[in-house]
Amino acid sequence: MSKQRIAIIGAGPSGIAALRAFQSAQRQGAKIPEVVCFEKQDDWGGQWNYNWRSGIDKYGEPVHSSMYRNLWSNGPKEALEFAEYTFDEHFGRPISSYPPREALWDYIDGRVRKTDVKDKVQFSTAVRWIEYNGEDDNFTVTVENLRSKTTSSSEFDRVIVATGHFSFPNVPDVKGIETFPGTLHHAHDFRGAEKLADKRVLLIGASYSAEDIGVQAFKMGARSVTMSYRTRPQGYKWPEGMEELPGIDHFDGETVHFINGETREFDAVILCTGYLHKYPFLASDLALSSPNNIYPAGLYRGVVWQKNPKLYYLGAQDQWFTFNMFDAQAWYVRDLIMGRAKLPSAEERAAHVKQWRARFQALDGDADDVQFQADYIRDLIEATDYPMFDLDEVVRIFLAWKEDKKQNILTYRDKQHRSVMTGTMAAEHHTTWLNELDDSLERYLSTPERSDIEELVHGKPEEAEPAAKA
Amino acid sequence: MSKQRIAIIGAGPSGIAALRAFQSAQRQGAKIPEVVCFEKQDDWGGQWNYNWRSGIDKYGEPVHSSMYRNLWSNGPKEALEFAEYTFDEHFGRPISSYPPREALWDYIDGRVRKTDVKDKVQFSTAVRWIEYNGEDDNFTVTVENLRSKTTSSSEFDRVIVATGHFSFPNVPDVKGIETFPGTLHHAHDFRGAEKLADKRVLLIGASYSAEDIGVQAFKMGARSVTMSYRTRPQGYKWPEGMEELPGIDHFDGETVHFINGETREFDAVILCTGYLHKYPFLASDLALSSPNNIYPAGLYRGVVWQKNPKLYYLGAQDQWFTFNMFDAQAWYVRDLIMGRAKLPSAEERAAHVKQWRARFQALDGDADDVQFQADYIRDLIEATDYPMFDLDEVVRIFLAWKEDKKQNILTYRDKQHRSVMTGTMAAEHHTTWLNELDDSLERYLSTPERSDIEELVHGKPEEAEPAAKA
Repeated sequence: MSKQRIAIIGAGPSGIAALRAFQSAQRQGAKIPEVVCFEKQDDWGGQWNYNWRSGIDKYGEPVHSSMYRNLWSNGPKEALEFAEYTFDEHFGRPISSYPPREALWDYIDGRVRKTDVKDKVQFSTAVRWIEYNGEDDNFTVTVENLRSKTTSSSEFDRVIVATGHFSFPNVPDVKGIETFPGTLHHAHDFRGAEKLADKRVLLIGASYSAEDIGVQAFKMGARSVTMSYRTRPQGYKWPEGMEELPGIDHFDGETVHFINGETREFDAVILCTGYLHKYPFLASDLALSSPNNIYPAGLYRGVVWQKNPKLYYLGAQDQWFTFNMFDAQAWYVRDLIMGRAKLPSAEERAAHVKQWRARFQALDGDADDVQFQADYIRDLIEATDYPMFDLDEVVRIFLAWKEDKKQNILTYRDKQHRSVMTGTMAAEHHTTWLNELDDSLERYLSTPERSDIEELVHGKPEEAEPAAKA
Repeated sequence: MSKQRIAIIGAGPSGIAALRAFQSAQRQGAKIPEVVCFEKQDDWGGQWNYNWRSGIDKYGEPVHSSMYRNLWSNGPKEALEFAEYTFDEHFGRPISSYPPREALWDYIDGRVRKTDVKDKVQFSTAVRWIEYNGEDDNFTVTVENLRSKTTSSSEFDRVIVATGHFSFPNVPDVKGIETFPGTLHHAHDFRGAEKLADKRVLLIGASYSAEDIGVQAFKMGARSVTMSYRTRPQGYKWPEGMEELPGIDHFDGETVHFINGETREFDAVILCTGYLHKYPFLASDLALSSPNNIYPAGLYRGVVWQKNPKLYYLGAQDQWFTFNMFDAQAWYVRDLIMGRAKLPSAEERAAHVKQWRARFQALDGDADDVQFQADYIRDLIEATDYPMFDLDEVVRIFLAWKEDKKQNILTYRDKQHRSVMTGTMAAEHHTTWLNELDDSLERYLSTPERSDIEELVHGKPEEAEPAAKA
């Protein structure tokens, strides 16, 4: 029997997890399948691979990453830590619980940068179309090398979809919005809050994007920040200058009429209206179609496509847990592919999905949700050799984080949590998030004197005239 | 022999021209093939179908149109008039030579709105992949209905690509641009100049986008407009507040360093850096790959794909002529498909392409270019029953337009030209372009009193207190 060929679509955190899972088995002496990963960007990291472009990238492809310059983790790093590659191992010393974008990219990259797994990735390569061949029970994957503009096709026995679902913005219509004359785009195209200084900003939405772009805009000196919710307000104790209003009835130029009869004028509007599950390279019988939830229908154990169990999805859930959940999924999928784990019959799988979906549908609130996802991950890890970790303690960290946010949405990132992997307590950071205007890795890892910090926060004091000029 | 099946990709001006060409033959009693047109937008009109969204549309597809709210034709309508559906026929009276966006959409739509050709268009349908089947000498076209999210495939004998090439922005890198904190996007995502009021605006580029967004920004009150050219300046007599500078060395935050050593600070940057030929639904042996020029290599008579003459492109050239050129191309392609025109052998075609490419490469300047394109169109029309028109006179109109722009880039749209189709002289518009802040069709077609015009230009005078309140 010839070697199985496995296609991984996407080299973000989930795709890298899949590459790492196979590498881990190989290191232990196992014979692994031939693995090819296709990534349309020039480097890996997925969402964490910041792109200054918005809308369309340099090859004419939709920009993948929704990341903005000033993004800092909005959840504690102790909740996303890899069980088999810790922050301690990567950074060599304790760091704070809420690192900026560059630090997290460095951590993801650090796990694999010294290995040969990068050789398995075809960068700048977009997957155009995947055809399932019933007779041969395999897939023809057609890709385009975006640099040479050449297309090619080859056969794979299995396909792992790891393209994520926070890349294609959901951009709903709002009555009259086409008359709004100011800055107007989706959060996906938001690249930094500096341009919002002194602006009256409207964020449409009440989830993570609205919350975080809202506090970023506040931090950068927006004149006002208004967030519009459809179902319920976020309910944080907003500082003066931030407010929540209910849904929008219509736009009339720069004036927005809310359904409670209030009106406001705005200079900038950002739609924080979520993302679409979209897989334009897959036929509809292979493409997951789901709202953003923590147990999408149609996926056995959250990863195996019920209608065709040679197709897998990683990270297709809404996410409390992230990197370590992708690992657990990738290890399990690897074991299915390598025959180390047994795939139950279609009927058994359907019953399993039904059971978990029933529990999912009965969930009531955040504490329930996060415990559900912890249990889901535990179930996967138990089926593999991925290192088990104290998932219940991570649930506790998540709930503490929620509580910290409730206390103060502007300071929760200044709190510390303890790693469940190493027991290391996070470091207190040299600068509070609200006062830190330099988001670089260099600044983050520096140990500035107190005076430097003050300088950065309050602006550089004017230099005295040089003596020569006096 | 069963009826030929023809797929038309895109229902913009070129796709509509193809639909119209078949309809025209049918009206004359000919049996026409089965025609199916796939359009990813909800309505036809292509670029002229304005979309307030930027980047990604409501279905998660790249936004097609690069149109902005305040766009007015930047060339005389007498140069783009359909020979078989005139402006006189559509509007019933003379209109000005440079109509706003809505008026042109209305004209395109008007030609076909009362016919049944709209029934041949599958709207909200994206073409995912086209496979040429060598054995059957036909194409399998796989599409996705974006509303129902269902994919389907069917066979076509011929494929007409009419997707245009001003939809996928070319977004080059510029050193340090990722540090720019202000508004930053490509002209493709520009929707209106109002937001540039009081801003220091940098436009990177020296072609139509930079020129027109530049004068729009000036009209809407930008504090300054700087345009950066790579090869040569546009060279118009810019009003105070507009300037041209050479290329950019690098960005450093909001400061831009030009290669001549000058620096400027900006609030907004728009990349007017052109567009890509991009056909993500085609294998590389079928996809045109060309810079934007008036005679792309690989296309016999500018429309027949040399490597596979059952594949056609409409509007793939850079364009002086537009709507009437698409018509000429569509009529010729129709005649090839229906066997009314004879396709020469591959060798003859190659010789023909070689000859025209040689002439193309010897062109020297605008007058040469436009005459070349006129001759190209004449050659096509002579092979079909499309009404011949005075192409040399249109060349003269183009050159007069160029001269008008040279005289005054802010007033050339106030000039009138005479239709070569009807002999009608364009109307003098009720308001000069620079003073017209309402771009709607309603306003355009209105006949305001002089006092209304003054009011619109200078702002509504404050109303006296109502008597009842006094």
